[in-house]
Amino acid sequence: MTTDDVVRTHLQELRRGTVVVASLSALKSPGHGYGLLQTLSDYGFSVDANTLYPLLRRLEEQGLLASEWNTQEARPRKVYRTSAAGESVLEVLLADIASVHQSITMLTEGKQS
Amino acid sequence: MTTDDVVRTHLQELRRGTVVVASLSALKSPGHGYGLLQTLSDYGFSVDANTLYPLLRRLEEQGLLASEWNTQEARPRKVYRTSAAGESVLEVLLADIASVHQSITMLTEGKQS
Repeated sequence: MTTDDVVRTHLQELRRGTVVVASLSALKSPGHGYGLLQTLSDYGFSVDANTLYPLLRRLEEQGLLASEWNTQEARPRKVYRTSAAGESVLEVLLADIASVHQSITMLTEGKQS
Repeated sequence: MTTDDVVRTHLQELRRGTVVVASLSALKSPGHGYGLLQTLSDYGFSVDANTLYPLLRRLEEQGLLASEWNTQEARPRKVYRTSAAGESVLEVLLADIASVHQSITMLTEGKQS
């Protein structure tokens, strides 16, 4: 494992759960997978379709996303939105991110001072 | 999968990478595994020994931690410290946390406004 691989692995671990948070947050405004992919990319979350689409299906199975088919276009597309349960879970996850962020800041500053 | 299980799984994913960051940060001051476990707990990272000890060995294999044996006590204990490579990786990971935190804040506030 090269240093680059090591860094990449740790970055992936660090970012894994954040795509869920970003998706639940973004899909408070209903949208399809491809649009979400673009929104996430705009906000600096680099996730590819092969990761995101299964994740969306998983979040739907868990009841955190609801979906319906938009049949008004030539090709029907699944439109997702964050469910009420999803919004509750999102609040818990956001609170956890804030708490971990604070802990890491304290730990880092504590050791540097 | 109950809602509690779902939340727990997402929290675990969210926190997985952060224990690495916290450990590399804390071990700028050399310490043994048990002491680190206590420090992490003090800062709100709930990780158990069965997770932390293999993680420390993995970080050492990756060259991010260095170790030596403290043989001055009745029972020799391995003392870890963050290596120069570990400090570099830590800086990258901290920068990434800050960036993701900012992205999530923007995404959340953008959707709420």
